[in-house]
Amino acid sequence: MDNKRGFASDNNSGVHPEIIKAMIDANTGHTIGYGDDVFTQRAKDKFYEHFGNDIDIYFVFIGTAANVLGLNAATHSWNSVICADTAHINVDECGAPEKFNGFKLISVKTPDGKLTLDLVENNTGGFGFEHHSQPKIISITQSTELGTVYSIDEIKTLADFAHKNGMFLHMDGARIANAAVHLGCSFKEFTKDAGVDILSFGGTKNGMMYGEAILFLNKELGQDFKYIRKQGMQLASKMRFISVQFERYLSNNLWFENAAHSNKMAQLLESEIKKIPQVKITQKVESNGVFAIVPRSIINDLKEEYFFYDWDEERNEVRWMTSFDTKPEDIYNFVSLIKEKLN
Amino acid sequence: MDNKRGFASDNNSGVHPEIIKAMIDANTGHTIGYGDDVFTQRAKDKFYEHFGNDIDIYFVFIGTAANVLGLNAATHSWNSVICADTAHINVDECGAPEKFNGFKLISVKTPDGKLTLDLVENNTGGFGFEHHSQPKIISITQSTELGTVYSIDEIKTLADFAHKNGMFLHMDGARIANAAVHLGCSFKEFTKDAGVDILSFGGTKNGMMYGEAILFLNKELGQDFKYIRKQGMQLASKMRFISVQFERYLSNNLWFENAAHSNKMAQLLESEIKKIPQVKITQKVESNGVFAIVPRSIINDLKEEYFFYDWDEERNEVRWMTSFDTKPEDIYNFVSLIKEKLN
Amino acid sequence: MDNKRGFASDNNSGVHPEIIKAMIDANTGHTIGYGDDVFTQRAKDKFYEHFGNDIDIYFVFIGTAANVLGLNAATHSWNSVICADTAHINVDECGAPEKFNGFKLISVKTPDGKLTLDLVENNTGGFGFEHHSQPKIISITQSTELGTVYSIDEIKTLADFAHKNGMFLHMDGARIANAAVHLGCSFKEFTKDAGVDILSFGGTKNGMMYGEAILFLNKELGQDFKYIRKQGMQLASKMRFISVQFERYLSNNLWFENAAHSNKMAQLLESEIKKIPQVKITQKVESNGVFAIVPRSIINDLKEEYFFYDWDEERNEVRWMTSFDTKPEDIYNFVSLIKEKLN
Amino acid sequence: MDNKRGFASDNNSGVHPEIIKAMIDANTGHTIGYGDDVFTQRAKDKFYEHFGNDIDIYFVFIGTAANVLGLNAATHSWNSVICADTAHINVDECGAPEKFNGFKLISVKTPDGKLTLDLVENNTGGFGFEHHSQPKIISITQSTELGTVYSIDEIKTLADFAHKNGMFLHMDGARIANAAVHLGCSFKEFTKDAGVDILSFGGTKNGMMYGEAILFLNKELGQDFKYIRKQGMQLASKMRFISVQFERYLSNNLWFENAAHSNKMAQLLESEIKKIPQVKITQKVESNGVFAIVPRSIINDLKEEYFFYDWDEERNEVRWMTSFDTKPEDIYNFVSLIKEKLN
Repeated sequence: MDNKRGFASDNNSGVHPEIIKAMIDANTGHTIGYGDDVFTQRAKDKFYEHFGNDIDIYFVFIGTAANVLGLNAATHSWNSVICADTAHINVDECGAPEKFNGFKLISVKTPDGKLTLDLVENNTGGFGFEHHSQPKIISITQSTELGTVYSIDEIKTLADFAHKNGMFLHMDGARIANAAVHLGCSFKEFTKDAGVDILSFGGTKNGMMYGEAILFLNKELGQDFKYIRKQGMQLASKMRFISVQFERYLSNNLWFENAAHSNKMAQLLESEIKKIPQVKITQKVESNGVFAIVPRSIINDLKEEYFFYDWDEERNEVRWMTSFDTKPEDIYNFVSLIKEKLN
Repeated sequence: MDNKRGFASDNNSGVHPEIIKAMIDANTGHTIGYGDDVFTQRAKDKFYEHFGNDIDIYFVFIGTAANVLGLNAATHSWNSVICADTAHINVDECGAPEKFNGFKLISVKTPDGKLTLDLVENNTGGFGFEHHSQPKIISITQSTELGTVYSIDEIKTLADFAHKNGMFLHMDGARIANAAVHLGCSFKEFTKDAGVDILSFGGTKNGMMYGEAILFLNKELGQDFKYIRKQGMQLASKMRFISVQFERYLSNNLWFENAAHSNKMAQLLESEIKKIPQVKITQKVESNGVFAIVPRSIINDLKEEYFFYDWDEERNEVRWMTSFDTKPEDIYNFVSLIKEKLN
Repeated sequence: MDNKRGFASDNNSGVHPEIIKAMIDANTGHTIGYGDDVFTQRAKDKFYEHFGNDIDIYFVFIGTAANVLGLNAATHSWNSVICADTAHINVDECGAPEKFNGFKLISVKTPDGKLTLDLVENNTGGFGFEHHSQPKIISITQSTELGTVYSIDEIKTLADFAHKNGMFLHMDGARIANAAVHLGCSFKEFTKDAGVDILSFGGTKNGMMYGEAILFLNKELGQDFKYIRKQGMQLASKMRFISVQFERYLSNNLWFENAAHSNKMAQLLESEIKKIPQVKITQKVESNGVFAIVPRSIINDLKEEYFFYDWDEERNEVRWMTSFDTKPEDIYNFVSLIKEKLN
Repeated sequence: MDNKRGFASDNNSGVHPEIIKAMIDANTGHTIGYGDDVFTQRAKDKFYEHFGNDIDIYFVFIGTAANVLGLNAATHSWNSVICADTAHINVDECGAPEKFNGFKLISVKTPDGKLTLDLVENNTGGFGFEHHSQPKIISITQSTELGTVYSIDEIKTLADFAHKNGMFLHMDGARIANAAVHLGCSFKEFTKDAGVDILSFGGTKNGMMYGEAILFLNKELGQDFKYIRKQGMQLASKMRFISVQFERYLSNNLWFENAAHSNKMAQLLESEIKKIPQVKITQKVESNGVFAIVPRSIINDLKEEYFFYDWDEERNEVRWMTSFDTKPEDIYNFVSLIKEKLN
């Protein structure tokens, strides 16, 4: 079943040809290792274009590390971090945040993957009480693991609460490009300008090969980060090959085109699925994921032809992810198959 | 000064064209993420060809992680690991082994980067005494950070001591190909057959872009490793792009040709340097590194034209590394420059 | 307000005179440190009398350490531990379990502080899936932080589920004596015989000065524990002064008398409180704690004369703990005060 | 062999009667737990008398914890701590410093257990280089594990170096009273006034039962320490019983009398031993330890009657510790036995 475009995850896709090309172009001669090179400087300059100059930027290999190490920079082991119970840091990192950072994760049930002021207030307490882990970070995912997107105001509200309480706001932006497309605004508007302190900026799910950026939008938090990255086993020797990916990704709107296409494919899937009465969409489709309840009888049949994952087995809810390389015919073929199996 | 071939490190070089080609070829369609794919299976098969089938193989991003996580699999936090004081795990990983594993590193001074039975015996004790960290692993580097190479017998002697004392033998093989070329034997002969239990198998310093393999030659030690790798933030989503590098690297003798060339360039440098009376070579040249004492007056002048590092500033000892892409004229030009500066 | 018997916590009380006497008696001459002494052997023998010989026993300083280190012995950092959200390990140890053990705590809401088979089943999953922390331990508290007590059958049910899934059952027995009195059976019947693998056995809340025992009822789990204890900073040099406390505590029914009295005082408080219509008891009184909803208007007034803590501020729920030295007049005086303030 | 006064360790002795008496006196009524009580305040006041008011004080259970947690307060996991290779933190804590703090210990060989400026300078480097653990603390032991004592000037020199390099000076004062007696000055003169930032202040080896103080002489370093102590499993519930020991220990010169006696007994032992030509004293006797090379043939015979430990088995060096309760006849009898065995 390899090499067929399915809906399992946006990381099942390959690499955008322009990204590959940039990597080939960088493969010439010797370059000093570990990031003190011109390629990396150029990549950082691209980030400055998008986020302003007053930030600190570090590249690592993957999103799990971006989250874990970014959180490390702003916490002590006796702190706690609040997140939705669907957050990647809570369910998909095999305990890496607790292991590396020693802190407590406080996970909160949400209907749509989004923390709210109420949820945060009700799960934040014990400030100054030595028996309790001290709340230090609110961590949100944009777009969320359920395909929903925080509005700028929703983010500002959480940032305000965090800052009033001596806390920070962290954003897991593994799919930040899809959120930006949905919001129709610049990265900066819903991150730095909205009060986000630490940002995991992902590209691998949107056409890159590997590499993730940690952006300290609150620049001070990054001051010792080079040691954290190295000790965190995330300092690439041949750094240029991460850097040129980001440079290209952030140039000529490549990030936007990929994410816009991916979102559009999710919308197409949504609109086609809505025509099928036996399938019920369960979350707003605001990025590149579609969540739906599907009759159990056909789920396994579908999986034999297309990769995708159960989301909540008990209620027959599945997750379908689209990607920068999803084609309309992939959608139409898949929907046809669903209809066929339902008959 | 970028893009000039210097002698700073073998990771300042780029990627071998054949490796890049394999990566491009793999960039087609969708593939399940995280390693359960055909590319990864083919790469593992290549390793089985070299090491036999009775091993367990995992890919990670970098050598630091290969060392740290490989050691994690065989230790408790109350154990100790013995290594040469020049070992990468001791001086070049910013404390990652202690941080992630919680154990004690016992570092031992050596004349040539190599542990001996005597050195290990004199620094291993307190078995069963609860106040002392319990010795569990002997970690050696092959080829060493000083460019020397352990003979098969030397490795067997250390493995025997380890196994007699309920310990394991770990090998940091960041430059294992250079050692294999020097020894003139297969990887298996001086690793699995000699009693090595855990092997960090590197390729990045010999023509790959990124990616390192952890080989549990003592297969049992790898049984839970998938969780350690994930929690260690080293599970690549688009794994195929690491796998195809290894597949190609281990095929058609590519690894051998690269390392043999690199070693040969080091020998050329050695023989040319030996003609210069003011420069004194300090270590046997058995792989791709040349260590030499150079008059202080010219070190900085040389560095202005070629990257390389001081090794021991106090005694004016420098390190010159050759690479798979070093050319004879690089050597000749560099040696000419030395002579010129000395006059 | 010091030196008045309140209802804040059973650790606000002092030390039973018989325990102090045993400590004084042990203060003679020199004794080898760290536990290899006759006092410690005698204390262990007392435990063997209560739990059988096939167990492994270690003394530490406090309950937090007993829990954290006991859990350490049976987990890897990539495991998870399931507990009630009221569990001491979840809310009152400032993240010590995550810090020292690196694992994930999965906390579950309960009505009465007790895990049930349903709750555990619904929160245990992902076995074999590398992205998820692997469930390894069910941790229960006996008696619970809400003063309730697990029946033997309830414990057996959880133990069976644990063992069928390759997991272990841990019991936080900070107030185990109170539970034993309530159940009217031996310690062994509701611990070892019911399938508990690891037990934190507390005495400080029932008349001891300091010291807690970790009992590996599944003896194998304790095999390396001496290193864990030492590295966990819990190996007492003058161990005899912990040991003689336990020896005395477990002799001549002292533990039973203290706990029986404490439970009886809680029952007296319950029966007196039930006569007051404005105060509502919220949990079954099965050990030495009484939980009640009290009109907000009088809570602070009461606190000016008696120590006690809010439990759930939002619903005006408070916690009153009795102790081995609580006197009936303490109860009557306190209840009188409540009545007075309510008028 | 229990209950005989030997020379194994000053923690083989019992508790000074005045200390026990203070504990009994404190055993009255209820007291709030965890240190917010009058006993603890009085103990702190005693420390203020000795060290001045501008310090921060915390009590823990044992010296290992005082060292590990005190160091935690001033380090990140990517730091290193420099100590003598004989330091308790290096050899006698089963790796607790690395486990809890994640940092690297750099241990340095010394002839007499004392770090010098030269030794520290030669082992401190790589500031700002991300591949190396960043030096942050110099840790010294006073009196040392070899019974020697740093002069005030020696301490000042190390403190100056530390502070000039953005580092701190930590003192393990498990036997600080013996050093104070030897130096003939106040605690403050060779600690706070000499530039020590963090001090583990011990009493258990000089007549207390349990309990150790961490003094942040550089007060700022202690600002979050209550969370570190709690998460470090070192917050005593019935704190008053530690506090009253310290209060009594620091009153009426008890600490001084005990240590002065202990030192005097070591001097007596030294002078008697010096009369025996076959036994060679190897270290200056400046506190309560005597180190000597003894003919191998009699070591085991002596051990059958008196507890003591080998120090360096290879060279037949043993360690004899005196204690606050050592009697002159213990010394004379022991020396007689040595002479007898030598004939």
